[in-house]
Amino acid sequence: MSQKPSNPKGTRDFNPLTLKRRRYITDTIRSVFTSFGYNEIETPSIEKRNTLYQKYGSEGDKFIFNIINSGEKIKKADIKSFNNEKYNDFISSISEKGLRFDLTVPLARYVSQHQSEITFPFKRFQIQNVWRADRPQKGRYQEFTQCDADVIGSNSIMLEYEMLQLFSDVFRKLKLDSVNIRINHRRVLNKIANHIGIVEDFNEFLVIIDKIDKIGIDKAKEEVKNKFKDLRDLDELFEMISKKMSPKTYLNNLKSNFLDHDDDNLLDEIETLSKLIMNDKKLINIEFDLSLARGLEYYTGLIYEVSLGSDSEIGSLGGGGRYENLTEAFNLKDNSGIGISFGLDRIYHVIDDKNLFPKDLSLNNDILVINFGKKYLIEIFEKINQLRANGWKVSIYPDNNKLSKQFNYSNKNNFKYALIYGESESESNCIKIKDLQSGSESDFGFEKFIKNFKG
Amino acid sequence: MSQKPSNPKGTRDFNPLTLKRRRYITDTIRSVFTSFGYNEIETPSIEKRNTLYQKYGSEGDKFIFNIINSGEKIKKADIKSFNNEKYNDFISSISEKGLRFDLTVPLARYVSQHQSEITFPFKRFQIQNVWRADRPQKGRYQEFTQCDADVIGSNSIMLEYEMLQLFSDVFRKLKLDSVNIRINHRRVLNKIANHIGIVEDFNEFLVIIDKIDKIGIDKAKEEVKNKFKDLRDLDELFEMISKKMSPKTYLNNLKSNFLDHDDDNLLDEIETLSKLIMNDKKLINIEFDLSLARGLEYYTGLIYEVSLGSDSEIGSLGGGGRYENLTEAFNLKDNSGIGISFGLDRIYHVIDDKNLFPKDLSLNNDILVINFGKKYLIEIFEKINQLRANGWKVSIYPDNNKLSKQFNYSNKNNFKYALIYGESESESNCIKIKDLQSGSESDFGFEKFIKNFKG
Repeated sequence: MSQKPSNPKGTRDFNPLTLKRRRYITDTIRSVFTSFGYNEIETPSIEKRNTLYQKYGSEGDKFIFNIINSGEKIKKADIKSFNNEKYNDFISSISEKGLRFDLTVPLARYVSQHQSEITFPFKRFQIQNVWRADRPQKGRYQEFTQCDADVIGSNSIMLEYEMLQLFSDVFRKLKLDSVNIRINHRRVLNKIANHIGIVEDFNEFLVIIDKIDKIGIDKAKEEVKNKFKDLRDLDELFEMISKKMSPKTYLNNLKSNFLDHDDDNLLDEIETLSKLIMNDKKLINIEFDLSLARGLEYYTGLIYEVSLGSDSEIGSLGGGGRYENLTEAFNLKDNSGIGISFGLDRIYHVIDDKNLFPKDLSLNNDILVINFGKKYLIEIFEKINQLRANGWKVSIYPDNNKLSKQFNYSNKNNFKYALIYGESESESNCIKIKDLQSGSESDFGFEKFIKNFKG
Repeated sequence: MSQKPSNPKGTRDFNPLTLKRRRYITDTIRSVFTSFGYNEIETPSIEKRNTLYQKYGSEGDKFIFNIINSGEKIKKADIKSFNNEKYNDFISSISEKGLRFDLTVPLARYVSQHQSEITFPFKRFQIQNVWRADRPQKGRYQEFTQCDADVIGSNSIMLEYEMLQLFSDVFRKLKLDSVNIRINHRRVLNKIANHIGIVEDFNEFLVIIDKIDKIGIDKAKEEVKNKFKDLRDLDELFEMISKKMSPKTYLNNLKSNFLDHDDDNLLDEIETLSKLIMNDKKLINIEFDLSLARGLEYYTGLIYEVSLGSDSEIGSLGGGGRYENLTEAFNLKDNSGIGISFGLDRIYHVIDDKNLFPKDLSLNNDILVINFGKKYLIEIFEKINQLRANGWKVSIYPDNNKLSKQFNYSNKNNFKYALIYGESESESNCIKIKDLQSGSESDFGFEKFIKNFKG
């Protein structure tokens, strides 16, 4: 029986215009990455189970798409585990591979695997799809595109600054220079947690901070109070967390309230970055924000998040940070990395919403050759080929249908010109061009025609 | 415990140079498709099980990658079927989706689903990955890239010809004009089978013909003899199958041996196509070949296959054909389609083998800014930004390391120029540029520097 066709929930078909607009965004991002000397790589959509798992926290692991082993291997399904409700063991008995969850873990795998071919620091970018078995919602997809730039093999603070330049350049070029970059520092969060009395369960503190956007500052404070005991300076902390700060205020607050002389390196680092930021008028708006945590486990240093401003319903348009230990899971030690990611799908949504796509992103429908029968088409095939060589996008209507049908096709598909060559044109050795917007028609001799349509 | 990292068998990492070369091929193909007025779409990597299955024959179904349902749905695993060795039922109890197997079935699904937005004939192209759970071998991958152009909604013979133009244009532009396009016709094969006495099991006849490349003509003849009884004209058939023919010979052979007046339409169609082929000097070499069958089930008319010539070990570089009934499986009737596909990975292999990649496909490593410390970098950030705006690809070495290390980095990564700005340059307000190929150095005042590096 035949079926009503549809794509899976959480995935999308991209029609020609949508795809052109997506390319406009990715081409812009690619051009910025390229101008900063990043080189593009691609990694497979499929990664081994042991590459993917235990990199994104236990919450992340749940959202990895698992692929069933093919062929005879299905016979090895561990039914005992299934019956004992040990579903993870059951799944791992029939699945050795999964779909790429982000572009950072594959990069760490790539760098470790190919380290002998790379002279570090390694600057790469990658624009590919990732897959997450998240419940599909408005604006949240199971397959979506990330655009990442990373540098592996240097812990220079210049790179923290370079990431801000990349964000700024891209969003300026996309005419979205009203976005905010919020930044924070994982080590600062760690020090603050220590200071108020949280030493062992830093990650649980982080999880609560990470939720502030959703649950609000008061509830978060309550949760911290309930989870941890004997804390000090909690009011001061949440007072400070509730504000977005200039680099200077952030720094002064840290110095006077939470950090001491042991933390000189960290303070130096933030001070240098602040100076670089204040020195550069081309950066888009940057705020230090102590409530920023970024859920993913692997960040260890500065963290970034770009959004439209606090009142927007659209989430993060980009983010990133420094991670020290990611390649270690793949046997490559002492290799600090830093990187940022642009979320193509949300950026698309914002540009569309603000009506900021360039107007000239049109389809490949320049000229439609009206079909008066094979005889006439054969006479002008060479001219048509010349048009194409000149850069024109030329379709031949494949069937010798009624003219009304052919012109209806050209209208519906927004063709610019119709090329008319039938009996009378053949007799008088000319080609008629109809401008489909103005409706005006002109006849050209063959020679003149090609000259006029140089492209 | 840490692991030795690797990508899954049958998949590949693409380093920057390899990726540039792949893009050279896909950009060439895209430019040809575009010049013929095809518009690009993209479909999801994941399709529903009922979209994918029973489209590629039972052999094809085996090679579809299945994705395990996420979350609680795993509890619905049909263990009874597993125990009864009904593995397909078991798999379908835990998997509703699979990875895209080709680009044609998703196109049929797309066209049916979005038919109200489309004015037919619909000309689209698509350049995306597909996945097959085939045993990985040299040159055969589980994830690879197809580049397809199709027209849905017309059965005009002009399109059979247009496909030949597309093949020819692409391979000429890639300097591979020595390839052969072999063509055959499914309906001709059908008629011939009828003629020699095979009426019911045409597909089994096709399967044997499809194997001729592998088993040779004699074994194929033997298999046909064993499988079917009371056949006639078998010697004549295999005599003809063993030859590659010009359009004229193909036609004459069909007329005098196998087709009769009932088949006038079919003969007319082949005759028209033959005339179009003979009329066009720009087409690459085309041979009619009765041994060509193309395994996939959905073809119903003309079929194409492009290869390097019969003595090459590399298989098909591209192929395609006309299919009448594909959208029918998705509830859209009477919608003939025709399309071709380029296999990126094999084309890459051939171009690489023949050393035909353009020499100027270089990495994004124009200028390396040598790092003499933040102080100096800050002084020239604006100049660096201007260079980038002028089209130069400029990397800043992130750490203030020993010069020998920085220059080693620039050599290993094939930078063209080093930009030197340290204490002495700062004092004399100039920028030193070292040409890393010749070793020569030049000093520029700031103004002159930007003028000289216009890009």
